[in-house]
Amino acid sequence: MKRTAFFVSDGTGITAETLGHSMISQFAGMEWAQVTLPYVQTNEQTHEAVAQINRIVDAGHDKPIVFSTLVDEEHRTILNGCKGLVLDLFAVFLAPLEAELGMRSSHTVGQSHAIKDHEAYRIRINAVHYALDNDDGARTRHYDQADIILTGVSRSGKTPTCLYLALQFGLNAANYPLTEDDFDDLRLPKSLQPYKDKIFGLTINADRLSAIRSERKAGSKYASARQCDLEVRGLEAIYNKHNIPYLDATELSVEEIATRIMASTGLQRKLQG
Amino acid sequence: MKRTAFFVSDGTGITAETLGHSMISQFAGMEWAQVTLPYVQTNEQTHEAVAQINRIVDAGHDKPIVFSTLVDEEHRTILNGCKGLVLDLFAVFLAPLEAELGMRSSHTVGQSHAIKDHEAYRIRINAVHYALDNDDGARTRHYDQADIILTGVSRSGKTPTCLYLALQFGLNAANYPLTEDDFDDLRLPKSLQPYKDKIFGLTINADRLSAIRSERKAGSKYASARQCDLEVRGLEAIYNKHNIPYLDATELSVEEIATRIMASTGLQRKLQG
Repeated sequence: MKRTAFFVSDGTGITAETLGHSMISQFAGMEWAQVTLPYVQTNEQTHEAVAQINRIVDAGHDKPIVFSTLVDEEHRTILNGCKGLVLDLFAVFLAPLEAELGMRSSHTVGQSHAIKDHEAYRIRINAVHYALDNDDGARTRHYDQADIILTGVSRSGKTPTCLYLALQFGLNAANYPLTEDDFDDLRLPKSLQPYKDKIFGLTINADRLSAIRSERKAGSKYASARQCDLEVRGLEAIYNKHNIPYLDATELSVEEIATRIMASTGLQRKLQG
Repeated sequence: MKRTAFFVSDGTGITAETLGHSMISQFAGMEWAQVTLPYVQTNEQTHEAVAQINRIVDAGHDKPIVFSTLVDEEHRTILNGCKGLVLDLFAVFLAPLEAELGMRSSHTVGQSHAIKDHEAYRIRINAVHYALDNDDGARTRHYDQADIILTGVSRSGKTPTCLYLALQFGLNAANYPLTEDDFDDLRLPKSLQPYKDKIFGLTINADRLSAIRSERKAGSKYASARQCDLEVRGLEAIYNKHNIPYLDATELSVEEIATRIMASTGLQRKLQG
């Protein structure tokens, strides 16, 4: 039997989900049905959320766990009347914060992921377009404007990591694929040479790379174990020869790759979430 | 004087940051210096975090607020000895969860944003590449494989929203720019016609659009108030004529646009965070 986790929010639901996932991932082996209820902003919507939670209990299932970031006090009172276990983020943390800061919180709904200001919007959108334009060394190579240039073989996670760095941190992240040609003489490609200090390498286990590439082009030379092994060995030889810092991305999520790169390079974000 | 907020984590820091931002955004007008300390996984690293927090107090500044998602009990005890106000996520929520679920949590570090399984990785990466390949109606138009097709004028937020939908929810999100040519006869572009049910429109305030475009091409016809006004009116006329659901993205963040689209269309995510 799966437990149901509800993420109830007056905004996007992202905070409630993030908090909730963090908690339920601590219970290994449990299966969860997950339901996000975003933009709960009226008494009526809160009563609907309660009804949805109660239906699960009334059907004889285990008590749902309800992660709530509702801010409005009336809505929180309504939600607390449901038959689930409500874990109320604001109840728990706002009181000590108000005491320490010596001020009342605004109890304003939907603040967390609201647009902050037009400057932050501009930084973010420009970073996304930068990542797109400077993806895969293909269209443009405006490396003078790069905060970081990721290198690696095809399908080692460069592109999603660059997009994540752009969206979350507002960084100009370019990426450049290293290929067989580069491995022959272990030279850095010419367009990268002036920007050596911005380069960060990704590597990946050759078997895993072969599996990922096989999804795309099964049976091809590109996906073969031999080719993947050759590329990964060449890649790491380049990194070692040129003292390029690098990371094995094999078992890492995009979030982990991005945040480890930030931690390892000391790169500062241009956006605060 | 700014207060300092620390986000201390044994993993990426994303949960601590998300939680923390949620809370501090409730204190309107306060200025914050924000410091993320990710991958705190040893006693020594925890002591270093404590030292960094204490230096701020020792320098005579206000007590920092410390949002912590550390899981290891020894590390939490060390952190709780610092001179900041520690808001400890796991202390507050794990106990009631353990009681309700009738099991001990695994107290395993860095679970929240760790790679879940290769299938989830595959869905996510494929969605990102889908978004890139089907951006701006330019390269490919594999709309048969789309979960959603966003339309709008140039620089109305389509591309970052598609990338966000791909990265966070694993959805195949294509986008197609509507242009002056389409507004003449208010017909849907031919390549969109078979997929009308997948289309979701974005619109934007014409003045704001003009400001955004002026960043890119100041003084151009493209950025002029007149042109932006004309495009936005044409766009909304198309949406209304064809009963295309749409959203005014003017004052919304990418997160808000994406989650409102999900809520409004009932589209189900393919990834759970």
